[in-house]
Amino acid sequence: MTELTVLNGAAIEGLLTIPMAVEAVEQAYVEKSKGDAALWPMVFHEFDPGHADLDIKSGNLDGLGFYGLKVVSWFGANPDKGLPALYGTSLLFDLSTGAPKALLNAGPITDFRTGAAGAIGAKYLARPDAKTLLMAGTGALAPYLIAATLYLLPQLETVYVANPHHPAQSAAACAAIVPQVEKLLAPCGGCHAEILPAPDLETAAKHSQVILTATPARQPFLKAEWVQPGTHISCVGADMSGKQEVDGALFASAQVFGDDTAQCLSVGECEVPYKTGVFSGNICEIGQVITGAAAGRAADSDITIFDSTGIALQDIATAAALLQAAQKTGQGQTVTL
Amino acid sequence: MTELTVLNGAAIEGLLTIPMAVEAVEQAYVEKSKGDAALWPMVFHEFDPGHADLDIKSGNLDGLGFYGLKVVSWFGANPDKGLPALYGTSLLFDLSTGAPKALLNAGPITDFRTGAAGAIGAKYLARPDAKTLLMAGTGALAPYLIAATLYLLPQLETVYVANPHHPAQSAAACAAIVPQVEKLLAPCGGCHAEILPAPDLETAAKHSQVILTATPARQPFLKAEWVQPGTHISCVGADMSGKQEVDGALFASAQVFGDDTAQCLSVGECEVPYKTGVFSGNICEIGQVITGAAAGRAADSDITIFDSTGIALQDIATAAALLQAAQKTGQGQTVTL
Repeated sequence: MTELTVLNGAAIEGLLTIPMAVEAVEQAYVEKSKGDAALWPMVFHEFDPGHADLDIKSGNLDGLGFYGLKVVSWFGANPDKGLPALYGTSLLFDLSTGAPKALLNAGPITDFRTGAAGAIGAKYLARPDAKTLLMAGTGALAPYLIAATLYLLPQLETVYVANPHHPAQSAAACAAIVPQVEKLLAPCGGCHAEILPAPDLETAAKHSQVILTATPARQPFLKAEWVQPGTHISCVGADMSGKQEVDGALFASAQVFGDDTAQCLSVGECEVPYKTGVFSGNICEIGQVITGAAAGRAADSDITIFDSTGIALQDIATAAALLQAAQKTGQGQTVTL
Repeated sequence: MTELTVLNGAAIEGLLTIPMAVEAVEQAYVEKSKGDAALWPMVFHEFDPGHADLDIKSGNLDGLGFYGLKVVSWFGANPDKGLPALYGTSLLFDLSTGAPKALLNAGPITDFRTGAAGAIGAKYLARPDAKTLLMAGTGALAPYLIAATLYLLPQLETVYVANPHHPAQSAAACAAIVPQVEKLLAPCGGCHAEILPAPDLETAAKHSQVILTATPARQPFLKAEWVQPGTHISCVGADMSGKQEVDGALFASAQVFGDDTAQCLSVGECEVPYKTGVFSGNICEIGQVITGAAAGRAADSDITIFDSTGIALQDIATAAALLQAAQKTGQGQTVTL
């Protein structure tokens, strides 16, 4: 019998902040780059292709003393039943004994850690004089990506929000996103940028020095000729073979960074350009840039791309931070297993 | 937010019975043989080879409407710290929505379902006139294997218990096992066989018509010449490459059955005989025998072997039965995730 902390969605939303998520995800990337962490093989199963699938991501994060897993199940028909399409469930284990330590609702963790990932890419790769951000995608991740990026790049003045596939919906989506961003940034200085619906994707892309993409696109929507020299792009949407958001031609001359090289080349934004031969496959892992083991942006005029496919270590690090915060404040429910 | 049932070790020990486990494991084998279930790729990680490792087994069991996973962590140094060497943790999910339904301590489930597996092999493959059982191995699984086999083969009159590697310890081990078997069989008619320490492994093997092996051996201890015509052997110990309990020569002429052909050939008792060429690799899955799709024992004089490597479906089926029993009796703890 061992004691385990249960952190449900409400508890996590009460505990987790943008700075916590950013710190945890940076730590995960750094541990990976130092070789003190490992990703284990991903389990992927399609119950009904295109309608219901699942993945299990797992790994160990030695520096934090934990290993863990996250099960993400997607059932496309759930919303018709009044249920969420996605369920995320995480287990955290003590690396020194193997004892289970926490069960967590991975839904809000995924939102925060994915937002942090895109923002960390921008922090280390965007030009320091970047003033304008384009958020391409208006789904659940958009507020987290915007908030984390504004937190890490306080010099940003303007954010354009675009729904690349339904431009007419950008304004309504933006209106819904603004209060969410404000709420996320309230504990860390508030929101000092203006968040506006993109006039149109092309114009917004041409005027932005940082672009974040987070859609389930299978056809690129961001054209190479719209992307100005010196732009940084964090690609978050592609996490499965066949997904692609950004014109593959950009990879021919961009500096390309990623969270995990193998995963980027097999299921990330890099996949299609790599498999079609446009991209050499030369990816620098972001952890190397954070530690200084590798250089980031080489020239002001370079286009940089960060392919954030999402790795188990982000979830484990964030879950570990949450467990610590819960223990300090006495939150969460303790169960004996 | 979704509700989930937590079943800890004590709750499971209070709910789970040998008949429940046997029924669940048979159902798992049958579903697999009908193609209504799938095993997903196993994750295996060695933290410190020979000292600490982990596996994650997962799959879906359509007929029962669940999918799930089990994490088993083995940390060999734990007992020195007063902790169990093994921690098992299971998650059960609703196959129609992906919602997590139960978190379970998989330790007692593993004991029961593994005992049931060895016994089911004997039920379908041993000669009906078998009178004597040899339990080779005196670890935690031994009482469960003996109890489940006595439950399914009430004609057994004598059980010999042998510690193959430390024969001098067989008597003490047997004395400890007897009350455990009696306790397990109390709810289902009691124990009607005599359970004795084996005089020695060779003599006991020669006099037994059913042999169960459950040790972590890496060198075979059961010699081919000790095994009489007509004997059935359920091999439970081998679940990792390199493990082997039974003389490979037996595989040259035995009828060989297994729980999952691929797993038997890669990590089960079949592995070494198959890789060294002694065994053709011709395995009949036990589910086929249970449904009648394939024949079991062909002749009274045949030696039959059941290679029980342990599959996720056994755990899922047993967990599903436990969840149902807990819901009926109002046991377990409900948490909102």
